[in-house]
Amino acid sequence: VSGATPVGPRPGGTGKASATVAMVGAGQLARMTHQAAISLGIELRVLAAGPGDCALAAGATGLLAGDDPLADLRELADGADVLTFDHEQIDPELLRRLEDEGVRLAPGAAAKLFAQDKLHARRELERLGFPLPPFAAAESLAEIEDFAGRHSWPLVAKAPRGGYDGRGVAFVEGAEDAARVLEEFGGTLLLEPRLDLERELAVLVARSESGEVALYPVVETVQADGMCREILAPAELPEGLARQAGELGVGIAEGIGAIGILAVELFLTGDGLLVNELALRPHNSGHYSIEGIETSQFEQHLRAVLGWPLGPTGLCGPAVVTVNLVGPPDGTDPRTLLGREIGAADAHVHLYGKDASPGRKLGHVTAVADDLQVARERARHLAERLGGLS
Amino acid sequence: VSGATPVGPRPGGTGKASATVAMVGAGQLARMTHQAAISLGIELRVLAAGPGDCALAAGATGLLAGDDPLADLRELADGADVLTFDHEQIDPELLRRLEDEGVRLAPGAAAKLFAQDKLHARRELERLGFPLPPFAAAESLAEIEDFAGRHSWPLVAKAPRGGYDGRGVAFVEGAEDAARVLEEFGGTLLLEPRLDLERELAVLVARSESGEVALYPVVETVQADGMCREILAPAELPEGLARQAGELGVGIAEGIGAIGILAVELFLTGDGLLVNELALRPHNSGHYSIEGIETSQFEQHLRAVLGWPLGPTGLCGPAVVTVNLVGPPDGTDPRTLLGREIGAADAHVHLYGKDASPGRKLGHVTAVADDLQVARERARHLAERLGGLS
Repeated sequence: VSGATPVGPRPGGTGKASATVAMVGAGQLARMTHQAAISLGIELRVLAAGPGDCALAAGATGLLAGDDPLADLRELADGADVLTFDHEQIDPELLRRLEDEGVRLAPGAAAKLFAQDKLHARRELERLGFPLPPFAAAESLAEIEDFAGRHSWPLVAKAPRGGYDGRGVAFVEGAEDAARVLEEFGGTLLLEPRLDLERELAVLVARSESGEVALYPVVETVQADGMCREILAPAELPEGLARQAGELGVGIAEGIGAIGILAVELFLTGDGLLVNELALRPHNSGHYSIEGIETSQFEQHLRAVLGWPLGPTGLCGPAVVTVNLVGPPDGTDPRTLLGREIGAADAHVHLYGKDASPGRKLGHVTAVADDLQVARERARHLAERLGGLS
Repeated sequence: VSGATPVGPRPGGTGKASATVAMVGAGQLARMTHQAAISLGIELRVLAAGPGDCALAAGATGLLAGDDPLADLRELADGADVLTFDHEQIDPELLRRLEDEGVRLAPGAAAKLFAQDKLHARRELERLGFPLPPFAAAESLAEIEDFAGRHSWPLVAKAPRGGYDGRGVAFVEGAEDAARVLEEFGGTLLLEPRLDLERELAVLVARSESGEVALYPVVETVQADGMCREILAPAELPEGLARQAGELGVGIAEGIGAIGILAVELFLTGDGLLVNELALRPHNSGHYSIEGIETSQFEQHLRAVLGWPLGPTGLCGPAVVTVNLVGPPDGTDPRTLLGREIGAADAHVHLYGKDASPGRKLGHVTAVADDLQVARERARHLAERLGGLS
């Protein structure tokens, strides 16, 4: 067994951070959290899977994971004020053990499970009375066919654990497909009918241990191939629907005891708003908040997990649009185009320090403007010039 | 002779930054430049004087200075796209040598000298026809008394090189004072009359090698004991004066061939606008731009020194005020108060990761609001609660 390796050692310094936050994961969310942490004098200490993880390149301190995950987590948490997350891919059992050992997790293991196990989330949210798509658990072809008999093909099948950015989600056209997906995903499937979506929305809520809650404006998310491609803030919605979405977000945050940022992905259907998935961490749908909201989701997450007072969540302009930079099929790297193209539109570029590969999220572009159409055109234009609007 | 020590080594990573910018100095300006560099995928490599320098604590890579400054600068520049500066305290002769060796400096050595030698700057700016306070060089009591004879006591005496934040500036009430200041500063003094200032203003200009120029709004700076304490943006000025200040800024940037951010400190007197001092680097008077301007001075500096297209410089709100957090006499450290006080006002906190000591700039607070009065109250309130409004 080899232990975790310290990385990014600092040459002494004062050692007097305002606080030390440990974060499991060192991807782009940790990278942008580190940027926010710098302003607050907070040390962000990450647990990285590999030496190329992009929060390390930005200068977060941390550990490279060894081959004993529980030992790594203990070492990460040691001396930190709180342990939080950049992703969902941690064994829930390890989190429960850490909690039993007295480590302060934010969110706690029970709340985090809502983002780690989609089936658990659906069952518990149903029990709490939140509006959900029809769903069922299935472990056999017979159970899938039974659900299809009630809702008709095609279905959507999801692996309850481990999926992200479209991975772990399959469209099931009929019995033959179903057998293949059962084989591929293994174990239990979460089934839902293929819904007729008017739009997809997301609402961010920050909640701290004291119970203080800060609600962000409801945004519209534009998806392609299961991956969020654009965020339009605020979503253009009748006031009643926007209010209802916000109430759902706050209700869920309080209902499940979320700490830190909670992102609630919502479907807008002919039957109204339905809760799709939860993320208990900063979320892609909140990237617009860096320039678009008085307190970015990254600063807010830090404040919430530390139990600090939360910041205001008003929009900084009438309309804010974020477009993800996704690696194009030809392997173009936005970093090679940035110096020439950065002035192509009035928009803010965020690169994640990742090597380009097709379909990989490499960064995002945000534009603030007087209306959504203009903001969207600007952000899309710059994203296209950077090769990331594939 | 011991060489520079690499610090903040990263565990490999991709090595594929969008660009590599070397910066002499690792203080708060380098720290905030590093934050901006992260978004653009730029590697900022700093030359630090000591292991506690605050850009290192934020995760910039770099070198700890050894005892051969020229060798350190060469090593810092090696492999970087450009060499730039977080301060003015570098021997101008070293910069000329680097330039002769083919190192790309931004700004170049000749332009940088305008910020390194106040007397040189006054003489050259006078030659270029910019409005200046009356001034003279003096090396003897007789020369000082001669200047006093023409302008009357008291005078202001400045050391042409090495001063900052009020250091290297003395008020001279009469001949006795003059002898003391001659002794203390040594060499040549820059003399000026004690002016009757209505206000102090500053204007930031970014200029890139291509000649592209971006002008920031004129701001009012509030000084105490020679140190900038508050920045009010935009300065409340008659339109003609604001336009004139902007023209002065652009004229000087072009006249001296500045590259990167140029800050022009201006006196508003009964005789109109007079040029006080120049800084050729990001500047305290531009800290409000992080939240207050579409393109912060730190991102803009990076774009300008790399020869990239510049970004827009519109205000993000009607009024923006920045208040510096200055260490109070009792040694209070804002980091110890942040978790409790951060919600005291709607304002953005920036801590520099420095140990508190009386009179030291430890951070700043910025508020964006509908009018200057409200923004100023908010920023001052939070600064006070953090112990930094001493």
